[in-house]
Amino acid sequence: MDLMTVVGIAASALTATSLLPQLLKLIREKKAQDISVTMLSVLLAGLVLWICYGVLKNDLIIIVANAFAVLVNLTTFFLTLYFKKHSGR
Amino acid sequence: MDLMTVVGIAASALTATSLLPQLLKLIREKKAQDISVTMLSVLLAGLVLWICYGVLKNDLIIIVANAFAVLVNLTTFFLTLYFKKHSGR
Repeated sequence: MDLMTVVGIAASALTATSLLPQLLKLIREKKAQDISVTMLSVLLAGLVLWICYGVLKNDLIIIVANAFAVLVNLTTFFLTLYFKKHSGR
Repeated sequence: MDLMTVVGIAASALTATSLLPQLLKLIREKKAQDISVTMLSVLLAGLVLWICYGVLKNDLIIIVANAFAVLVNLTTFFLTLYFKKHSGR
């Protein structure tokens, strides 16, 4: 495995999992007032396009990393909407 | 320009600009309690690695998209720290 592939995999892993801490904070604190739903929507559209790009390129790493990110994004998206409606503040 | 390149550019543009709405909301409302600093840090590391990947691959689109995202991310990061310390709540 050459350096470029290693850097690409590491970059995919970090960006794909970057939303996870926000999701965990959301579940822990049940507060979402300051989170931008627009950000989550734009990011979701981008991630779906990255999956299409991975399919066109037949690149499993891009597909898997971004499919995982879409799952985390969708969960964060719906929990954000829920806690914006049902939060104490 | 083939379909794959168009999809790749669109995906880069969306994911690179996805943090912008969160930054604008942060500037507008000056509240950051619910934003995860860990998310911003993990995302920042991933974006820097994507720039390295772009350099290794000599791909200007990947470099420019992720360099822009790093700028937005860094601004969001420091403003989040600032408003967490100086917010009304």
